[in-house]
Amino acid sequence: MAITMGDASGVGPEIVLRRAADGALGDAVVYGDAAILRRGAEMLDVDVEVHAVAGPEKASHPGGLDVVDLAQLSEHDHRPGELDAASGAAARRYVERATIDALAGRVAGVVTMPMNKEATQRSDPRFVGHTELIAELCGSPSVTMMLTNGDLAVTHVSTHCSLREAIERVRSDRVLAVIRLTDEALRRFVERPRIAVCGLNPHAGEHGAFGDEDAEHIAPAIEQARDAGIDATGPHPADTVFFQAVHQRRHDAVVCMYHDQGHAPMKLLAFHTAVNVTLGLPIVRTSVDHGTAFDIAWTGRASTASLDHALAYAWKLAGRDGVS
Amino acid sequence: MAITMGDASGVGPEIVLRRAADGALGDAVVYGDAAILRRGAEMLDVDVEVHAVAGPEKASHPGGLDVVDLAQLSEHDHRPGELDAASGAAARRYVERATIDALAGRVAGVVTMPMNKEATQRSDPRFVGHTELIAELCGSPSVTMMLTNGDLAVTHVSTHCSLREAIERVRSDRVLAVIRLTDEALRRFVERPRIAVCGLNPHAGEHGAFGDEDAEHIAPAIEQARDAGIDATGPHPADTVFFQAVHQRRHDAVVCMYHDQGHAPMKLLAFHTAVNVTLGLPIVRTSVDHGTAFDIAWTGRASTASLDHALAYAWKLAGRDGVS
Repeated sequence: MAITMGDASGVGPEIVLRRAADGALGDAVVYGDAAILRRGAEMLDVDVEVHAVAGPEKASHPGGLDVVDLAQLSEHDHRPGELDAASGAAARRYVERATIDALAGRVAGVVTMPMNKEATQRSDPRFVGHTELIAELCGSPSVTMMLTNGDLAVTHVSTHCSLREAIERVRSDRVLAVIRLTDEALRRFVERPRIAVCGLNPHAGEHGAFGDEDAEHIAPAIEQARDAGIDATGPHPADTVFFQAVHQRRHDAVVCMYHDQGHAPMKLLAFHTAVNVTLGLPIVRTSVDHGTAFDIAWTGRASTASLDHALAYAWKLAGRDGVS
Repeated sequence: MAITMGDASGVGPEIVLRRAADGALGDAVVYGDAAILRRGAEMLDVDVEVHAVAGPEKASHPGGLDVVDLAQLSEHDHRPGELDAASGAAARRYVERATIDALAGRVAGVVTMPMNKEATQRSDPRFVGHTELIAELCGSPSVTMMLTNGDLAVTHVSTHCSLREAIERVRSDRVLAVIRLTDEALRRFVERPRIAVCGLNPHAGEHGAFGDEDAEHIAPAIEQARDAGIDATGPHPADTVFFQAVHQRRHDAVVCMYHDQGHAPMKLLAFHTAVNVTLGLPIVRTSVDHGTAFDIAWTGRASTASLDHALAYAWKLAGRDGVS
């Protein structure tokens, strides 16, 4: 499993080093800069030996941290906590190489540590985001973000756009596509995933009294999904479906119509432990659910819980347990 | 404290009877139909004596259930679980009388059991909802719904309208009005309530990248509130503010921009125990957080937890403990 070390100025490399020292990374290889990781181990006084390797097949693991060394940055380029164009460009390279190796089957998948959008945009103004970069490399036009705490998954018909625009994106073809991606992802562990589809409006529109998108765009998508053998139900009112899913265990996943509809309940349930999964790619990709956190980077204070969960879930998606 | 018994076909009267038999209603008087409650006590084999009284001053409580008897329905009019025009009209009368008595200071406030909108509309097609009826009787043009589990309160800039319409209602005067009502309500228990104001868009708009309502309409309202001495902060991203409020106890209340933004997290936290409070009225009014539930009415299965919480919170708002 590839772990990209993320922006060198942020918390990514530090979290990787600390978990490597704990022996918690198992059968994983880091994509990044060996010089930064070696210097970081000294800075933080973390006891781990960093081995630069030419490719993932050369990784040997026991006792050390194997790094597919992209040699983008020297130790003098290390700017803890600073937004830096070179670190941003380097972070992009780690992801490119890890994605290409995953597509070639050289690694079981990719777990990504955070990039900084602004830092990467300094060398590439066209850069939109981590996920978009991976989707483009994979040639995948239709991806969606799934957040999961292991018990419950939420997926999204739209994420990073205004609420106004999110309403426009609630169209039956798009809703159906996300239901299908959700079903496909969970079928890896659950025979027939129970997928609850949220309404857009309060009370899922209350028979048209509070908006017509629920009946006009969401209900037909659910019907088509059911015709295709998917156990999709709804549209469910968004204010009760999470209670039913969590406390009554009625659903395995909730398909949400906009970012906060899924993110607010999931972060309330699992702020430090939610895993971000990209669906619709030909490769396994999970991500930690936090950013570069420049304010606390390289102080040893960043929580490592999200990496542990992202790594474990990536192995789960890959159908293996992660220990060779 | 007045408790309106709600639609006779629904779970309201039954819940009142069961808690009266448990001696759990304290210093409260029911507004409803004595004939229905007497028949109900027999039906459910609940051991409680129902006393019809002319007004709340005549209530004596110990051992029995005092009812300000509106004499709208006879025992032959009792239609358990059936949508019924006479029961709907009667439910409206209980609320009118209790509200008038609260305005006159004859009771400390009103706790409402559920009405059925459709049943009441059969005799009054203009009937919009329980809260609107009370607001009209009180001459209060600007009310808002607060949901609380006792630790955290959520209020709403809009509730029962489409998400499209909710976006239009995010205007600084309206946001400021809800911040003020929230502050005023919580000042009864908290010296300087910490009020978090949610953004509308993902990441509270991310500096305009995902919509401009957060900067254009919400931020100015927060500034005006702060100028008026209110401890309001934000706009906060809706996907992290509930985590901060619940797990880090950073906020006493969250002002939400639309129905599900507040209802989804609150119902996840406190499905059976959330209390619905109407702010902006000259009287105390709380409500149970469930409907008439015709499907289980008069079977003895309805949860009584919400009444207990609604009654306790009404006493808290009234500044008394509810036991004479």
